[in-house]
Amino acid sequence: APLGVELRCKCVKTISDFIHPRQITNINITPEGPHCSNIEVIATLKNGGKEICLNPETKWVQIVIKRMLHSANEKQ
Amino acid sequence: APLGVELRCKCVKTISDFIHPRQITNINITPEGPHCSNIEVIATLKNGGKEICLNPETKWVQIVIKRMLHSANEKQ
Repeated sequence: APLGVELRCKCVKTISDFIHPRQITNINITPEGPHCSNIEVIATLKNGGKEICLNPETKWVQIVIKRMLHSANEKQ
Repeated sequence: APLGVELRCKCVKTISDFIHPRQITNINITPEGPHCSNIEVIATLKNGGKEICLNPETKWVQIVIKRMLHSANEKQ
């Protein structure tokens, strides 16, 4: 398999509970593809590097990601 | 250092040129923090797993990420 490509879904289940962005080290978004029919959004937490699968349909997830991106614009 | 936490910025430079979403395996968003004063958006490409730093202020980057997240909603 090509480097960095998973051959199946990584998330068994996703959570919708709010996690404060301050607890999040980074967020990884993998679009759906031949390997998995779901978009997968995985947050790595600061405390120990634990990875959590987030529900991409959850409003807070979409808002947090949007705010992260827009904070870059505001700094200009 | 805690697992999964980089101690400095990962991106030396960022690109703004359009990359088709079909070429992207996943996108990793790291908010600014003590390790780095910039938000970092890193796309992993399908062809060989190359990692590219994207400019988070670029409109296409924001639109592609937004569309990825919203495609989850549309599937319901």
